Amino acid sequence: MTLKTLSVTRDLLATNKQAAGAIRQELRARGILGINLLSSPGSGKTTLLEALADRFRGRFRMAVIEGDIETERDAERIRAKGVPAWQITTGGACHLEARMIGRVLGDVPAAIDFLFIENVGNLVCPASFDLGEDLRFVLLSSPEGDDKPAKYPQAFLSADGLILTKADLVPYLPFDPARAAAEALSIKPGLRVFTVSAIRGDGLDALDAYLVETLERLRSGRA
Amino acid sequence: MTLKTLSVTRDLLATNKQAAGAIRQELRARGILGINLLSSPGSGKTTLLEALADRFRGRFRMAVIEGDIETERDAERIRAKGVPAWQITTGGACHLEARMIGRVLGDVPAAIDFLFIENVGNLVCPASFDLGEDLRFVLLSSPEGDDKPAKYPQAFLSADGLILTKADLVPYLPFDPARAAAEALSIKPGLRVFTVSAIRGDGLDALDAYLVETLERLRSGRA
Repeated sequence: MTLKTLSVTRDLLATNKQAAGAIRQELRARGILGINLLSSPGSGKTTLLEALADRFRGRFRMAVIEGDIETERDAERIRAKGVPAWQITTGGACHLEARMIGRVLGDVPAAIDFLFIENVGNLVCPASFDLGEDLRFVLLSSPEGDDKPAKYPQAFLSADGLILTKADLVPYLPFDPARAAAEALSIKPGLRVFTVSAIRGDGLDALDAYLVETLERLRSGRA
Repeated sequence: MTLKTLSVTRDLLATNKQAAGAIRQELRARGILGINLLSSPGSGKTTLLEALADRFRGRFRMAVIEGDIETERDAERIRAKGVPAWQITTGGACHLEARMIGRVLGDVPAAIDFLFIENVGNLVCPASFDLGEDLRFVLLSSPEGDDKPAKYPQAFLSADGLILTKADLVPYLPFDPARAAAEALSIKPGLRVFTVSAIRGDGLDALDAYLVETLERLRSGRA
């Protein structure tokens, strides 16, 4: 990386941090818990959001901002669950940035509880960009392998929670959830770990409870 | 993206293209087929290379350059197969660049047939960087989903071949290999498509034959 590239990157991150700070402030003022989901392509971010939409229906109100390079597909899947969703297509860019979220935020209904942001599928670049969320999850699906945390440390280091997805496939794979969790915890001690199968429902009770508890903590902090 | 960022990116790509051209020329002069493997994390690049190492043993000589953000793990797996391997750890960078390959190239034995380059696991950024290879494959594993080509078009557009991996998991997944292939072909007509299970051996005959045929074509073009 040249010095010029380094300095442009630094400017970009500083500008992003500022925009993220404003979003965080606005979400907290509205009593909305912002949640940023990071993972490789195909780790099950959208399927998890579909499952949470089913669980929260009638209990909590959620909305979703979808990030993808191209296509409206993920937002359409979320809307089919009766949940408001906005698709941001980055047109080539490998991550979401705070100002992209800022442009959508005015359209998000004031009376919601959870605002999920599904990042572009990429275990590297999105880790460096704060989107103003109060909770960041990294997802790791069992077919990706339990050796991934040490190979992609920044995503795990920057997260508050790790969601091990596609637990239903573990019997067919050389994947040890305990090894994946231990490696992630060696990078980020205190990381909250959830093991789920969104299509079968395993582990969703614990994740649901943690989200509700974090929402309540955010709101009592505000009060 | 600011104009300044755009211009730095353009400079970076131009510098990379120049370095890639020199590598391509050197590999061709040595009669080595350079192959760049692109995919999401955990799509099975290293497992495929292990399977090819077993198949080529005694028939062809191969070497591998491994790209990862951190850890020497993949190079160790390849060396355990008796194949020379070099690990490039990018320390945060989301893709390999030609000059990183250039720095290793002097150490690669002259008398090899195939030089595989396993890129950093990332379906976005590596697509923009020519590494001087003569053949580029994008891998898509069945657990990632058959909707990925349209969501990550550049990786598919820039590839010569598509390898659908982890075919052994298809019975447990909502994955249609024909749909994935059709979508990839709509982005890049003429893409060669292979469906493999590296751990079970399915589809490796066809891939092996294509690699050998491409090597022969490269050498006869040189002669």
